[in-house]
Amino acid sequence: MGNEKRKRAGRSLGELGEFGLIEEISRLLESGKKAVRGIGDDAAVLENPGGDYLLLAADAVEEGVHFRLSQGPRRIGRKALAVNLSDIAAMGGQAQWALVCLGLPAGFEVEFVLDLYRGMEELAGAAGVGIVGGDTWRTGGGLTLAVTVLGQVSKDRCLFRDGAREGDVVCVTGSLGDAALGKHLDFEPRLAAGRLLAERFGVRAAIDLSDGLFADLQKLCSASGVGAEIRLGDIPATARAAALPGAAFLEAVGGGEEFELLFTVAAAAAPRLLEEFPPAAGIEVSAIGTILRPEAGLSLRGLKGEKLPWPPGYDHFC
Amino acid sequence: MGNEKRKRAGRSLGELGEFGLIEEISRLLESGKKAVRGIGDDAAVLENPGGDYLLLAADAVEEGVHFRLSQGPRRIGRKALAVNLSDIAAMGGQAQWALVCLGLPAGFEVEFVLDLYRGMEELAGAAGVGIVGGDTWRTGGGLTLAVTVLGQVSKDRCLFRDGAREGDVVCVTGSLGDAALGKHLDFEPRLAAGRLLAERFGVRAAIDLSDGLFADLQKLCSASGVGAEIRLGDIPATARAAALPGAAFLEAVGGGEEFELLFTVAAAAAPRLLEEFPPAAGIEVSAIGTILRPEAGLSLRGLKGEKLPWPPGYDHFC
Repeated sequence: MGNEKRKRAGRSLGELGEFGLIEEISRLLESGKKAVRGIGDDAAVLENPGGDYLLLAADAVEEGVHFRLSQGPRRIGRKALAVNLSDIAAMGGQAQWALVCLGLPAGFEVEFVLDLYRGMEELAGAAGVGIVGGDTWRTGGGLTLAVTVLGQVSKDRCLFRDGAREGDVVCVTGSLGDAALGKHLDFEPRLAAGRLLAERFGVRAAIDLSDGLFADLQKLCSASGVGAEIRLGDIPATARAAALPGAAFLEAVGGGEEFELLFTVAAAAAPRLLEEFPPAAGIEVSAIGTILRPEAGLSLRGLKGEKLPWPPGYDHFC
Repeated sequence: MGNEKRKRAGRSLGELGEFGLIEEISRLLESGKKAVRGIGDDAAVLENPGGDYLLLAADAVEEGVHFRLSQGPRRIGRKALAVNLSDIAAMGGQAQWALVCLGLPAGFEVEFVLDLYRGMEELAGAAGVGIVGGDTWRTGGGLTLAVTVLGQVSKDRCLFRDGAREGDVVCVTGSLGDAALGKHLDFEPRLAAGRLLAERFGVRAAIDLSDGLFADLQKLCSASGVGAEIRLGDIPATARAAALPGAAFLEAVGGGEEFELLFTVAAAAAPRLLEEFPPAAGIEVSAIGTILRPEAGLSLRGLKGEKLPWPPGYDHFC
């Protein structure tokens, strides 16, 4: 019955798309509405009577979708934790604890599995995170790591997606365009940078680049109820990406899994941030556009000021 | 390279077994040692400057391993959350928040997915838990739900596995033997019972029955550094299990996924618990054995007092 039932005439996920599905799920989950923030930000934000907000984020990665086994167990384990730390970074938070659910196909040897954990443990140690448990199961699919991270953030320093205001400057850390070349495995989650942005530079809204610059800015603008204009010529590109022709350039700098921070700051506060943040954090930052009123929608300006179509985002189900 | 490397000559998981693997993982995870309790209990126990301990538990279920699609999306969703609530119950805690990582194979229709969440949401509402986020991905395996639950527990009321002492009475809630008949999907996580046991009856150690009575008592005894004797005739069996002959009876009452609570209480406190807990909780409780000194090991006494071999436990990798 299973196969017939799940596939009976009805809306398919391809039609609805990942974001449409998440919206429908979010609507039916009444139970989560008592949270400070539930579905719809990089991490859930939860009241904690004792003090700071609790942050809770979970992301799964699977062989063949998010990595290949040939990339090696340490890098794979590291990535599974890092994508979650990136979510905490985008909230301006401090990551503290992690749980790992590990789905193992048949035939793995013990050392490979221990190396997955060694890769996680190395990053956990560097980030001040303790790996405190989880679950293992025998999967029928590819190697799967579903990691949850618990963190905290001061109540007045939490960076939500919905804080962007008309006139804000849109900024991004680092250089974009090399995710597909290996950065998606070896990136540094921007934890210290996220806290610095929240604590010292009055950043108003932030998101991490997991689905890509254009898709993630769209999410931030939609959450904030604003429009935005991005200047193509100001997008910080890696040397390789900068040498690519038009469409390939856009595809490279807009690709998923860059895990840089995209954020907005009040125009008056932007100059100090652009000057003081890079030496303080040891990370470049670029002003790439402006937040506009909602009716303006999203637009991309070419090198001669011409209006270009907004590049399509990546959908995990299409 | 992947396949060769992961399968190169070396120890196989089958040889090492699930518990051996977890022990080795636990040894290499230095980062988690700063937790009050990391790997090795039903949930991780974390300091929270503001007050109560935080509890964090994660468990994944996959089609073909833990459920079949024909069992229906609402029951499947419910189970994915319930197994995690059971872990919080075994700590004497209050479950508060849940995240869901959902791995979807190709071809599912939207209503099936929403029904998974409806099944979770129904239980979440009843248990006072808010579902606040997670992740969806396209899996190459069967439908997978990796759920994390965050809870809290008073620092002086947390039920660890390692609190059992020589002379304690070993007790279990409910009746055992019907897990395989459907209870593994529809069981009630013993949240209120767990809190009651911790708060009003001075219970010393607890674990939930996920791997089965004999395997889980072995874990509790190993954590506590004690032995135990169980009386076959006192194991509370369902009508169906009670009618089974010897070996089949043991297999039924010792089967996995019963999700009852197994706990120990000081002998002096046992009579009041056995009298007052059932009417207070609306759940039966049975005294099934005694905690012994470590040298005594684990033993099972038959109906005539004869010593029987300790039944083998279930290993997810063997």
